[in-house]
Amino acid sequence: MKIEVKKIGVVGYGLIGGSLGLGLKKYTDNYIIAFDKNPKVIDYVKKNNCADAAYIPNKEKIAECDVIFIALYPESIIEFVDEYYFSFKKGAIVVDLCGIKKYITEKYSDSAENFYFIGAHPMAGKEKNGITAADADLYKGASFLITPTEKTDINSLEYIKYLAKKIGFSKIIETTSDNHDKMITYTSQLPHIMSVAYIMQKAHSKCDGYYAGSFKDMTRVADINSMLWTQLFKYNKDILTEQIDEYIESLKMIKNYITNDDDSLFELLKKSRKLKEWQDENYKC
Amino acid sequence: MKIEVKKIGVVGYGLIGGSLGLGLKKYTDNYIIAFDKNPKVIDYVKKNNCADAAYIPNKEKIAECDVIFIALYPESIIEFVDEYYFSFKKGAIVVDLCGIKKYITEKYSDSAENFYFIGAHPMAGKEKNGITAADADLYKGASFLITPTEKTDINSLEYIKYLAKKIGFSKIIETTSDNHDKMITYTSQLPHIMSVAYIMQKAHSKCDGYYAGSFKDMTRVADINSMLWTQLFKYNKDILTEQIDEYIESLKMIKNYITNDDDSLFELLKKSRKLKEWQDENYKC
Repeated sequence: MKIEVKKIGVVGYGLIGGSLGLGLKKYTDNYIIAFDKNPKVIDYVKKNNCADAAYIPNKEKIAECDVIFIALYPESIIEFVDEYYFSFKKGAIVVDLCGIKKYITEKYSDSAENFYFIGAHPMAGKEKNGITAADADLYKGASFLITPTEKTDINSLEYIKYLAKKIGFSKIIETTSDNHDKMITYTSQLPHIMSVAYIMQKAHSKCDGYYAGSFKDMTRVADINSMLWTQLFKYNKDILTEQIDEYIESLKMIKNYITNDDDSLFELLKKSRKLKEWQDENYKC
Repeated sequence: MKIEVKKIGVVGYGLIGGSLGLGLKKYTDNYIIAFDKNPKVIDYVKKNNCADAAYIPNKEKIAECDVIFIALYPESIIEFVDEYYFSFKKGAIVVDLCGIKKYITEKYSDSAENFYFIGAHPMAGKEKNGITAADADLYKGASFLITPTEKTDINSLEYIKYLAKKIGFSKIIETTSDNHDKMITYTSQLPHIMSVAYIMQKAHSKCDGYYAGSFKDMTRVADINSMLWTQLFKYNKDILTEQIDEYIESLKMIKNYITNDDDSLFELLKKSRKLKEWQDENYKC
């Protein structure tokens, strides 16, 4: 694959977008343009040389980009793509990076006469947000999920995968947007729901001195960004509510086993241990 | 308080009992006797000098002890106390160390004419079990929960608290067995149930490459000791099933909020974040 120097725009230059931009600047020869609505972010990017150029989003500069990564909240991605739909450079590759894929990918996968739309999801994060927390090496060793459709342009897809490898992603996983959302619902959305429900329990305010590791684990992600996660949950509500239902059924079953006089609880806990042993052998986490 | 050298027996010389015995041997002048049903453990203790003496439990040696700590599973504690009820030295302090307190404490708090029974719960552990994992400093900085009743002998209580401080516990919390069980249900038992239910989800076997921190946190304690936890859950079933019900109700509420068109989900997530911020300010974890 012959790789030319391209103009790559990153829209939303916070932790995710900023880290991507910094990584592309450090590990490729492309010309990186930071876009952010916040003038303070633009100032910071210029002062700290976090990109080759930085602008408030505008049609003229967006139209110059060969590739555009969008690191915004789901609703803002839709607003952004709708606003610039006819301003993107003909043949530009437009990649959205948010944590749900089906809703957005289905909306734009027919767009190819104007630009090539691809859904992706970089599986990395940090406790802190914003450009000041961004890091060119945030994605080292992480998974890059990408959800092409039948209509996805193959060259565009290969080029985005090439960039992802360049900035350190160690695993590039191609899957359908539907499977992506099902898996992320299980590994990320359901745990956030579990944590929020857990921290709501009456005993939470009274348990000082009585906790150890499990309490810390179960409350860790209750410190949730309500705007972002409201959108992630709502645009994924069908899959999410189905998995919550499945989870509630398991809890009810365990509750029944606890009150039964037979071996059902003991057997279930043995099964749980086997599943965890299987996980430890098969998953590298 | 004048402290004389005493004979202290520790029954069940695994991670919890063995660490207690090693700590008492290292940080006090008492004579520490290890008791364990497993001859291999007795051999190991003797070879590695983990106690001043080591025996398979027997009436003669149990009767010599001024203090006995019992680090066994709940049902084995009851079997042990019942078996040795009339063999304990007159005025001996008998302390059970398991993770539920109400069921066992209520059973023996009337025992004072024979011996002084006290419920306690050292809040520490490790991924590994057994005497080979035991450590004299396991309890450094941990909480020691103790659940006296109205009938508890005050001198015995003070002496056990004194020993706990000697071996490094930084926080001694006196509470009722009922409150102990409610708090531990919330901070430990419910998280184990949550983790077991979570690992049972259909998506568990298919999510390789799609996980990050939350998945690891939520599955960590699914690697459960089924014999021990079956007993801990069953002897605490009233409190536990009540808290599972409370948890299921919260999950149902969140599920409804996800499908609602109003701000209820957004507001709930804001509340969750506030609770986590309160926790971070008020709890040292």
